[in-house]
Amino acid sequence: MRALRKIAPGKGFSLEHIPVPSIGPTDVLIHVGTVGVCGTDAHIYHWDTWAERRVKPVLTIGHEFMGTVAAVGDAVTAFAVGDRVSAEGHIACGICSLCRTGQAHICERVQIIGVDVDGAFADYIRMPEANVWRLDPSIPDAWAAVFDPLGNAVQTVMAADVSVKSVLITGVGSIGLMAIPVARAAGAAKVFAVDVNPQKLELARRVGADETFLATDPELVAKLIARTGGDGVDVLLEMSGSGSAINNGLAAVRNGGVAALLGIPSDDVEINLAERIIFKGLTVLGINGRTMFETWYQTQALVTSGRVDLKPIITHELPFEEFDRAFALMRSGDAAKIVLTL
Amino acid sequence: MRALRKIAPGKGFSLEHIPVPSIGPTDVLIHVGTVGVCGTDAHIYHWDTWAERRVKPVLTIGHEFMGTVAAVGDAVTAFAVGDRVSAEGHIACGICSLCRTGQAHICERVQIIGVDVDGAFADYIRMPEANVWRLDPSIPDAWAAVFDPLGNAVQTVMAADVSVKSVLITGVGSIGLMAIPVARAAGAAKVFAVDVNPQKLELARRVGADETFLATDPELVAKLIARTGGDGVDVLLEMSGSGSAINNGLAAVRNGGVAALLGIPSDDVEINLAERIIFKGLTVLGINGRTMFETWYQTQALVTSGRVDLKPIITHELPFEEFDRAFALMRSGDAAKIVLTL
Amino acid sequence: MRALRKIAPGKGFSLEHIPVPSIGPTDVLIHVGTVGVCGTDAHIYHWDTWAERRVKPVLTIGHEFMGTVAAVGDAVTAFAVGDRVSAEGHIACGICSLCRTGQAHICERVQIIGVDVDGAFADYIRMPEANVWRLDPSIPDAWAAVFDPLGNAVQTVMAADVSVKSVLITGVGSIGLMAIPVARAAGAAKVFAVDVNPQKLELARRVGADETFLATDPELVAKLIARTGGDGVDVLLEMSGSGSAINNGLAAVRNGGVAALLGIPSDDVEINLAERIIFKGLTVLGINGRTMFETWYQTQALVTSGRVDLKPIITHELPFEEFDRAFALMRSGDAAKIVLTL
Amino acid sequence: MRALRKIAPGKGFSLEHIPVPSIGPTDVLIHVGTVGVCGTDAHIYHWDTWAERRVKPVLTIGHEFMGTVAAVGDAVTAFAVGDRVSAEGHIACGICSLCRTGQAHICERVQIIGVDVDGAFADYIRMPEANVWRLDPSIPDAWAAVFDPLGNAVQTVMAADVSVKSVLITGVGSIGLMAIPVARAAGAAKVFAVDVNPQKLELARRVGADETFLATDPELVAKLIARTGGDGVDVLLEMSGSGSAINNGLAAVRNGGVAALLGIPSDDVEINLAERIIFKGLTVLGINGRTMFETWYQTQALVTSGRVDLKPIITHELPFEEFDRAFALMRSGDAAKIVLTL
Repeated sequence: MRALRKIAPGKGFSLEHIPVPSIGPTDVLIHVGTVGVCGTDAHIYHWDTWAERRVKPVLTIGHEFMGTVAAVGDAVTAFAVGDRVSAEGHIACGICSLCRTGQAHICERVQIIGVDVDGAFADYIRMPEANVWRLDPSIPDAWAAVFDPLGNAVQTVMAADVSVKSVLITGVGSIGLMAIPVARAAGAAKVFAVDVNPQKLELARRVGADETFLATDPELVAKLIARTGGDGVDVLLEMSGSGSAINNGLAAVRNGGVAALLGIPSDDVEINLAERIIFKGLTVLGINGRTMFETWYQTQALVTSGRVDLKPIITHELPFEEFDRAFALMRSGDAAKIVLTL
Repeated sequence: MRALRKIAPGKGFSLEHIPVPSIGPTDVLIHVGTVGVCGTDAHIYHWDTWAERRVKPVLTIGHEFMGTVAAVGDAVTAFAVGDRVSAEGHIACGICSLCRTGQAHICERVQIIGVDVDGAFADYIRMPEANVWRLDPSIPDAWAAVFDPLGNAVQTVMAADVSVKSVLITGVGSIGLMAIPVARAAGAAKVFAVDVNPQKLELARRVGADETFLATDPELVAKLIARTGGDGVDVLLEMSGSGSAINNGLAAVRNGGVAALLGIPSDDVEINLAERIIFKGLTVLGINGRTMFETWYQTQALVTSGRVDLKPIITHELPFEEFDRAFALMRSGDAAKIVLTL
Repeated sequence: MRALRKIAPGKGFSLEHIPVPSIGPTDVLIHVGTVGVCGTDAHIYHWDTWAERRVKPVLTIGHEFMGTVAAVGDAVTAFAVGDRVSAEGHIACGICSLCRTGQAHICERVQIIGVDVDGAFADYIRMPEANVWRLDPSIPDAWAAVFDPLGNAVQTVMAADVSVKSVLITGVGSIGLMAIPVARAAGAAKVFAVDVNPQKLELARRVGADETFLATDPELVAKLIARTGGDGVDVLLEMSGSGSAINNGLAAVRNGGVAALLGIPSDDVEINLAERIIFKGLTVLGINGRTMFETWYQTQALVTSGRVDLKPIITHELPFEEFDRAFALMRSGDAAKIVLTL
Repeated sequence: MRALRKIAPGKGFSLEHIPVPSIGPTDVLIHVGTVGVCGTDAHIYHWDTWAERRVKPVLTIGHEFMGTVAAVGDAVTAFAVGDRVSAEGHIACGICSLCRTGQAHICERVQIIGVDVDGAFADYIRMPEANVWRLDPSIPDAWAAVFDPLGNAVQTVMAADVSVKSVLITGVGSIGLMAIPVARAAGAAKVFAVDVNPQKLELARRVGADETFLATDPELVAKLIARTGGDGVDVLLEMSGSGSAINNGLAAVRNGGVAALLGIPSDDVEINLAERIIFKGLTVLGINGRTMFETWYQTQALVTSGRVDLKPIITHELPFEEFDRAFALMRSGDAAKIVLTL
């Protein structure tokens, strides 16, 4: 079968032919149909410091995907050949206290497909039954392929509880963009978006942001406070990982508000904890992955009810073989979300 | 000044002329502009058993209103003559443990204007400063006059937490109708409405219900369970006070779901607690009044953001003198919400 | 092996010899050491209306137990022969939305050992790996055998959130008794207990109740309100299933308080919803089973930290063969919790 | 009357004679009986950078106190001359959205007695009726005088929800010490304490810490993780304000745990947000002041139920005139909590 692989340290991926994976009694073999290209894949493609430390070639990459069940292990009961599915890419240990109390998404022994074990950019992938998700027939393939990042947006929005609140989203890459219609659908009374890229801000407005601001605007915090009756926003959804966005975002949140941090800073961040968090009585939430499977049900409800539309966000749908073009488009900033069809 | 009063036990109200109320140091005198007519007012008008037990004539009735500040007491700091305002009609004691912990809306010594003390269907009303609410200039008078019942809808919706959930509303009188756009705006993924009145159900669809059902439909519970993938609805907002609606509603909620009860049953209700609540692991919330002033801020956000539109729900705007017609219209079932202008 | 079985409708159990159960790839075979006798077992023993409707003989009964792993299926990874274990007796379907969102304890297709499938009153029991719980070595066998009902007490207490609150427990059978030290350990500021049996109330005081009352005391509600500064208790833990206890209990809860219902009424209960729940702004929680495995971790923490002592509650430890004596003792009211050793 | 005042920038306080304050219609005049000496008072005494920036002499200092009502304004209804009282020292604006939604403790226009306006180290203090708290007769004067810092401990413990959890307290100054019995009483299953001062750690064990560690122990984090089954503590209560304590504390919290920050760092803190907060899925809570009056009721319940004993923590009770000795004792580290009697 075809598989997009990192075969050695350094830039780029190779399209290889490798054997179809074998499956155990509790596994499901999935024939992959469409995959989503993530920033994580780009880190591995360009082989940056993070990738160098974390990824051990040879590895099939990719973790956002949908497809069809091709085979099931003897002990599998919930899925059958032909089922149209996606899957949660975090393979948790299943036996630690976090796994046994509904928090498998932050299991300390988690293995992520396409990062720690062979991933989804291939004709077939093996997944444990516990990770597989049956797709509603009304969901298009391209949308189903990006349930993983959409789930990140849902996890962040739902953890912060945006219902009838003003919401600031800092960083509108693909997850930040997805968070806009998700926050609107989940009940946000007002959505503000901030980014360094004016094109992304235009797209942000198109998918439902009430107002957008350049991250470089020196009056940013003052404007956000003015827009919210002098109080500051109720909720910050931080999706950039930038230290200055985090500090500005915290400054723009009202006393007693909530800040959900999803973006990953590459370095330590200096924070005036007294002024930014303690005196304000803030709640700061670290967000990682997606609660299994609460966010999947929520994501499904948002999409099938028509409350969330991904069309403007999936800007490119390319054939699998054009993966190099996909990574070039991502780097250029011209693409929001790219999916590849196998 | 003019005042609509219950002057003696029995049906009807009298439009009387009485002195303008005097105010104490912490009071605000409000020149009333527009008032909302509530089911409670109709109970007092028709002098039913509840009214007979609770209301002691002579009394000026009415508790939903907006107007303009006409005078303020010496110790008042937050309001000035000319301010456009509404007010919370529950006058709490201010010193009990509930009042001192943010739960004044369920203070055991609360006095309700128009029920326990003179109300708002008059040219002037005296309110404690602590109860007065400054109105955003963008809110029309008729909408401002019904912030009280709209606040009930908001309280119920927000207590139940509808974000990305399926919601069943049983009983679409005026508060039930208001709860539909409020639930949609607060993030409900799906809103079902049930009533005995097909006209009200049509209005329910007009203001955002995804699907409606007659309360008399023998397949009601089965249909609701079918519409929600076999699970049942996530949330019940009970706004009818009918015993059978409560029992059907509880039957239609999924295991682990939430039922918020706002409608007031006139008698005891027989409930199969084992099957309807305990085995299902339900959370049942008694809802009374509106949290001061969290729901007022939420109501304001919903209206000023344009997320909630009251136009289809305020079906009649009549002159104050036509109060008899208002109560006749309410009884006929042809009206949803009626406001009177002074 | 020996197995205590219901072999036909009617009173009593038979001690039979049957084959050791075979296990599948994801099962664990447990050599049973000590079992707890539950009210549910007594219902089946005495063959009451509930038992007649629910239980289909032939069936090995019993669901509270501890033992040692005797064999594991091929796909089992978390347990090995010799491990000292207990197990969650609710075998959930694993694939419904409740199972996949951390609410397996209220799965609609749950099967309970000793009620729906063969249970633990036998030398060996087969359990799915997902249900097995490894025991801390410091926990005595008799305590480990009753982690199931202790978990019910923990589930009820933790759902109601008793930290720094006044708590009323109505019904101090064995779970109600366990709830007393659990509530104390979980932070209750005051624990009141009510029962019809004065002996049980004495035991209640011995395990930590601050004050106890006879359920028949006509001044019961007034006294509870007086004991709480005129407000009523913060939390009701209803563990009797009696309609009058439920109504009195709700009357004794303060406005804005919480009532957790664990006791199962045998009939419908008439409730004045307006006065008892709605006007008071109560939160009523239906409690069923035990959250897997959050309550097991909490139960373990309570016991291993020494905060909860079960010694006074486990009043009898009998040989397995004396099961008839155990059910007679339960009926007499002289026993609190009885365990049997195999 | 006597008043301990900062009369000019620089070290020390002066015991002056000034007129008794006059009161307005909604004020209460309190004859002060006993006061507590706080770290904040010490900052002002020693005139450090924070004091220089914040405090404008001439000012009567002190905010922890109890006394007796000496006079009440015309509009005061809840208190009468002779009432034994304490008072919340945060005087909030009363009209902002935070004040009107139960979050007056984080009002942006708050004025703190003894910091922004004249304080309690005087024979008389004027307080708004809304801030006054009636004392239960069973509470000793010295304990009543420190309800303010005890309330900080309660606020931190209750915000973090410690019921049946393992709790780490970093920094056992007087509030950290108080947090130990409060956490125990509120249901903590295990309490660990960390400090640089071995004497304080001994006191920590005396008031209920299960185990204590020196902050300088290089194995601190590893030991805490080992003590909690390899997971890390459920809850961190950070009460030192030290950057390294914050970083070590966050490292010692388990994935999905809670960190409540009360200690005020004097500088920015560098945090590895990715590893310490985001990947772990932590909830970080900024804690400021005490919720009015929920924490006061909780504090009262903890003390009057006998669950919390302050005797070992109030190490010194001195006459008002010996204030210089009090500040010297505080600096020496030999005192935990000092109260002065007027």
